[in-house]
Amino acid sequence: VGRGLVVWNPQFWLRAWRGRIGAELDAVVAFWERHSHDPEHGGFFSCLSRDGSVYDDTKFVWLQGRQIWVYSRLYRTVPRFRRPELLEAARKAGEFLESHVRPEPGSTRAAFALSRDGRPVRLQRSFYSEAFCALGLDELGRAAGEERYRAWARRWAGAVWGWARGAPMELGRPRFSGTPPQQALAQAMMVLKVGLQLWGDPRRDPQSQPEPPEAEAMAEWGARHVLMHLQRGDSVVLENVSPEGEELPGSLGRLMNPGEGDPNLGRGDPSLGFSHNFSLFFPIFLPFFSHFFPFLYFSPNSHFLPRFAQLEWSMKLWWPHAEAMVALLAAQRFQPRPSLVSQFLQVAQYTFDKFRDPEHGEWFGYLNRDGSVALSIKGGPYKGCFHVARALLMCEEMLDAILEGEEPPQ
Amino acid sequence: VGRGLVVWNPQFWLRAWRGRIGAELDAVVAFWERHSHDPEHGGFFSCLSRDGSVYDDTKFVWLQGRQIWVYSRLYRTVPRFRRPELLEAARKAGEFLESHVRPEPGSTRAAFALSRDGRPVRLQRSFYSEAFCALGLDELGRAAGEERYRAWARRWAGAVWGWARGAPMELGRPRFSGTPPQQALAQAMMVLKVGLQLWGDPRRDPQSQPEPPEAEAMAEWGARHVLMHLQRGDSVVLENVSPEGEELPGSLGRLMNPGEGDPNLGRGDPSLGFSHNFSLFFPIFLPFFSHFFPFLYFSPNSHFLPRFAQLEWSMKLWWPHAEAMVALLAAQRFQPRPSLVSQFLQVAQYTFDKFRDPEHGEWFGYLNRDGSVALSIKGGPYKGCFHVARALLMCEEMLDAILEGEEPPQ
Repeated sequence: VGRGLVVWNPQFWLRAWRGRIGAELDAVVAFWERHSHDPEHGGFFSCLSRDGSVYDDTKFVWLQGRQIWVYSRLYRTVPRFRRPELLEAARKAGEFLESHVRPEPGSTRAAFALSRDGRPVRLQRSFYSEAFCALGLDELGRAAGEERYRAWARRWAGAVWGWARGAPMELGRPRFSGTPPQQALAQAMMVLKVGLQLWGDPRRDPQSQPEPPEAEAMAEWGARHVLMHLQRGDSVVLENVSPEGEELPGSLGRLMNPGEGDPNLGRGDPSLGFSHNFSLFFPIFLPFFSHFFPFLYFSPNSHFLPRFAQLEWSMKLWWPHAEAMVALLAAQRFQPRPSLVSQFLQVAQYTFDKFRDPEHGEWFGYLNRDGSVALSIKGGPYKGCFHVARALLMCEEMLDAILEGEEPPQ
Repeated sequence: VGRGLVVWNPQFWLRAWRGRIGAELDAVVAFWERHSHDPEHGGFFSCLSRDGSVYDDTKFVWLQGRQIWVYSRLYRTVPRFRRPELLEAARKAGEFLESHVRPEPGSTRAAFALSRDGRPVRLQRSFYSEAFCALGLDELGRAAGEERYRAWARRWAGAVWGWARGAPMELGRPRFSGTPPQQALAQAMMVLKVGLQLWGDPRRDPQSQPEPPEAEAMAEWGARHVLMHLQRGDSVVLENVSPEGEELPGSLGRLMNPGEGDPNLGRGDPSLGFSHNFSLFFPIFLPFFSHFFPFLYFSPNSHFLPRFAQLEWSMKLWWPHAEAMVALLAAQRFQPRPSLVSQFLQVAQYTFDKFRDPEHGEWFGYLNRDGSVALSIKGGPYKGCFHVARALLMCEEMLDAILEGEEPPQ
């Protein structure tokens, strides 16, 4: 045949990645099933060494809620994961949470960390633990078809919704006269995410109506507040702004988090999330992409100094890379362009090459700037069975839709 | 003359370093005098860019207390620094603290951060802000010869002393049933340090008697608790142990902080600090030294996993290097050996080569593992006018004593 032109065939590459991503999702879920379960007390270990052995048995509440969500969503929506063991592990973790997560009986708060047997260890002054309880328990209720889990979720969501709008928080962060009024993108995103979760996706979850009335209000409020972080003629996403959507002075106002800022478009349910956000977030993604790929953890641009001394700014973390894969496929689905496919291929290749551990499974979380592994752990207090599995699931779904030429939802 | 034997003459090298260190101390103090003062409100900026410009005007309370201590100690004990401007800046910062540091009027707590004009911004759930207020104000009182600053210091010290022994702390960290009883080396060290500061050094500060009775009790308690962190046959210094001095399970129990662990011998007043601690800490320093020089920020030994995911574990920070210079000279003063001098020369050379900024003055704080600069800032919420100046001052004093063949105090 000899030499010839190589024909650029995006379908070919996307199809190859569809296979690779599906196999990786299977392997990643198998890693967590093998190593993270606690058959004695229920719930999940997340402090796993490179080979999966538990190096600390503290149970982190963010990661309980997140792993419950992943298992339940997989069980509910992906036929090959409809295995009773997955649902059972999620159930046991849900029961563990409901029995133990309050720092004191009757408290409205959820702890950040529990001992292996469920005694409270630590509490954060923010509402992320409670939000992840809401996300996990709602999805568990949908997967198990049991209303009581969803009722628990609604109670956590109601607390988050109150705090987000300024209700006083038991053991929360005290506000002082010198603290500038501010809102964090991460908080607005969590409200949006919890609202969308409770709302559900009418297309594939028709039985979920009627939804609690606060779901739509939360999603709307969250989306509106997320958009306030688009600044400077939609050219940057700033992590912290004033409640009126103005820039804040000092380091606080300069912080950008690429993981939350640009691939933010990849967050939330792609159908709902994007119908709210995509058109606005999209234009700022591409310049960001070309400047910072592979994504440093915080922007090194001197005009956007990290908050004071964010020591890890030049590291490469797994989750912004996973989110970027999602974001690029979502972009391709809604506004297809050849450049998006080649960017997806570039990010996916880098991510699989550098983060994936072919020897023991799962991904490394923390690389140095040069791509070498900085911490060989597979999990810790912030990395568990969540970002990787969720991103692979979302990529799989979107690749299927793109390859089948399905119309994106309006 | 031709080729010849090079005679190893430690006195020659130590004398050369005495000159270099003295000049560096002058330059470092000049950097902070030029860039960190706030003539309008008093107090010090610590968020300085590489060239000294202020990138954020938040005033961090640890660094107010620490800079007050450095200026006052220099003014009081080093003739060439007996300049009214230094004392005046320390005084203005002391008055700024006393007027503004409480998060609310009448509070027993000191904020962690203040706005430029002194409104409280943030509070930590630990007692380090209060301890640094005590250190700075006591030294200011000695330098200015004014009892009222020392009375302020005693009030802060009394609060720290109560909290260290378990008194409930307003807005402190809540303790839950799953939190293992634990004590942190950093807290014991701060109690020791505050106790030694209030106690004073009778040799050079004869007018300081009588001291408050709690000073000796604090120093004794602090020293005793510091020593409880020596574990495994005095072969390691663990950051966290049980109140009975037993090892703790999990990541919490494995944490080692070289900056606090081994060059801990360099902390505190060298005369008192060492007479209490040195003989015990010394044996563990040397193996540590050879394993980890130049010092990584957290121990990479897999048996001593950093607490969960200490992202910065492989970075090199300025302060453990500065403390190591002090520790090696202290060791040389008390138990002289040729190897200590050559190790001091090695650490000092590396530290000056890599951390010192010959272009704009002061030292970089945060290097990557390979010695390249990770963050070009000269200060932030934890780096200000303290470790570098204090270490240079202590090295200068000890080099003088070593070179003059002075007997170490008993």
